[in-house]
Amino acid sequence: DSKLKLFTLNSNRELAGQIATEIGIPLGKNTVTRFSDGEVQINIEESIRGCDVFIVQSTSGPVNEHIMELLIMLDALKRASARTISVVLPYYGYARQDRKARAREPITAKLVADLLTTAGATRAIVLDLHAPQIQGFFNIPIDHLVAAPILSDYFLTKDFDPAELVIVSPDHGGVTRACKMADRLKAPIAIIDKRRPRPNVAEVMNIVGNVEGKTCILIDDIIDTAGTISIAAAALMESGAKEVYACCTHPVLSGPAIQRINDSVIKELVITNSIQLSEGKTSPKIKELSVAKLLADAIVRVYEEKSVSTLFD
Amino acid sequence: DSKLKLFTLNSNRELAGQIATEIGIPLGKNTVTRFSDGEVQINIEESIRGCDVFIVQSTSGPVNEHIMELLIMLDALKRASARTISVVLPYYGYARQDRKARAREPITAKLVADLLTTAGATRAIVLDLHAPQIQGFFNIPIDHLVAAPILSDYFLTKDFDPAELVIVSPDHGGVTRACKMADRLKAPIAIIDKRRPRPNVAEVMNIVGNVEGKTCILIDDIIDTAGTISIAAAALMESGAKEVYACCTHPVLSGPAIQRINDSVIKELVITNSIQLSEGKTSPKIKELSVAKLLADAIVRVYEEKSVSTLFD
Ligand SMILES: Nc1ncnc2c1ncn2[C@@H]1O[C@H](COP(=O)(O)O)[C@@H](O)[C@H]1O
Ligand SMILES: Nc1ncnc2c1ncn2[C@@H]1O[C@H](COP(=O)(O)O)[C@@H](O)[C@H]1O
Repeated sequence: DSKLKLFTLNSNRELAGQIATEIGIPLGKNTVTRFSDGEVQINIEESIRGCDVFIVQSTSGPVNEHIMELLIMLDALKRASARTISVVLPYYGYARQDRKARAREPITAKLVADLLTTAGATRAIVLDLHAPQIQGFFNIPIDHLVAAPILSDYFLTKDFDPAELVIVSPDHGGVTRACKMADRLKAPIAIIDKRRPRPNVAEVMNIVGNVEGKTCILIDDIIDTAGTISIAAAALMESGAKEVYACCTHPVLSGPAIQRINDSVIKELVITNSIQLSEGKTSPKIKELSVAKLLADAIVRVYEEKSVSTLFD
Repeated sequence: DSKLKLFTLNSNRELAGQIATEIGIPLGKNTVTRFSDGEVQINIEESIRGCDVFIVQSTSGPVNEHIMELLIMLDALKRASARTISVVLPYYGYARQDRKARAREPITAKLVADLLTTAGATRAIVLDLHAPQIQGFFNIPIDHLVAAPILSDYFLTKDFDPAELVIVSPDHGGVTRACKMADRLKAPIAIIDKRRPRPNVAEVMNIVGNVEGKTCILIDDIIDTAGTISIAAAALMESGAKEVYACCTHPVLSGPAIQRINDSVIKELVITNSIQLSEGKTSPKIKELSVAKLLADAIVRVYEEKSVSTLFD
């Protein structure tokens, strides 16, 4: 008879605590600190022999610290005779390095998948991968959850008139995501079409679809420096939109992001807690939704050896 | 017909430059920077197809950054069709986590060896591993060089009278290392024997061997916080030593190390450049020796498919 154990590391303690509460078990006892020289020191303080262990860790910034913590924890769990070890990655870092765009580039998203397996992961649970193809980088079973229903349900509570609503993808790559949200909100879509007429000439923004007088919801998977999203929002207002909301699953929000959000025409930015915002990274415009229940349900279904495909949307 | 290429990353550019000069080739062209969110961005800017590539990188602090740089570089080199990829690790971080001292500890020194192989390393060249057994953690050929001759030769230039000299190991574990240096300097050895009579009672230092009126040279592989070495030096002076020198291969020098060295009775601390000291980590007591020639010779011998065992001492 096996037993479910849930551990966490330093990237996302709040979310891990919420997941534990949802499942109704305590978080496993472990410490993750640093030796004087900066090397990771991990202690697992309870037996996990024969257990089905789940570790919650986003490989968000500081990404290399969080990856190494996870790899070292996997090594410790493997040597401590866990029966299975599932990595729960609410945010999968390095996902944008998923192909060789130029000669002699690394494919770090594949490398990290291999490192996790080498260290001892036997299964992965991930949320909104930057590209769904990254599932194929893993040689272990992987469950890919999506947060779009959580984001959509929040906007449903605002009772927008579907006739006055449009879901906007900030680029070509995100159209599928926008369509899914549009389905749920029974609204049409629009696409921001960026073109650079000639090299070294400023990009031109064309909006494909009707946004005039409408409430726009921009949707993306990752918002990093917030450059794209704030420019897109401005373009929508210039094209006669009534108001612009934005949402994403993964709030990377690096560099000038918070400042740009605050300065932008965006009315509200809806994010999830897949990445725990660091101290001071706050804005009155930001609304955070929790993915704890989604992840907790997936963990329990994996543990009970049931399909998690019902959680896909 | 293959070709030797030498690359480096961010940990030890000075040493890598010296190695390139010794070999008589330029350093390969590559950049190692960070995206806005802290993810490593690597570009290799020359073809390496079919080449025998050597990458110089110490996994010194910030250790997790330096490990990830190395792994991502290995991935890029592998995908760019290098013929062989040798990692040259003047300092191998995480080496002290080389066994389970307590239940459920990781063995990170083994993990890192496996990660390097997974990422694409086909061979390793290392210097003074904390334990020689770590060689067995690698499933690829490994050459283990020692810096003791370089340290010894420096002390030979001081023309100490061998009858007034003693080589001291700061603990039981380092006696073999002290013996090797003693051989070369034709001097006797002494050992600092630390005992804790009962738990929660201060350690007692016994000095095994004769140090009275003598010049002592303390030798260790790693000096980290410099606690052990400065206490050992004080104990030697209290036992009547004339003066105390200290030396090590790997100057980790974390936390209070520099302050402790400056405040200690140590006359001179001799180190190698296996770890590049960060900005401001200096002391008038420190003398740095270069391992560039040792590593350059090993690289050329590996490239020419000759045994490097002659470089062992
Ligand atoms: N952390 C990062 N921040 C910004 N750009 C990145 C990052 N990682 C990879 N990239 C680049 O983003 C591009 C892929 O992004 P995308 O077109 O959104 O899939 C690639 O050309 C990568 O070089
Ligand atoms: N970076 C580090 N700094 C200080 N102690 C460490 C470090 N890494 C491992 N250790 C501990 O050092 C001990 C091994 O050191 P040693 O006895 O010198 O081989 C183990 O008990 C480790 O837990």
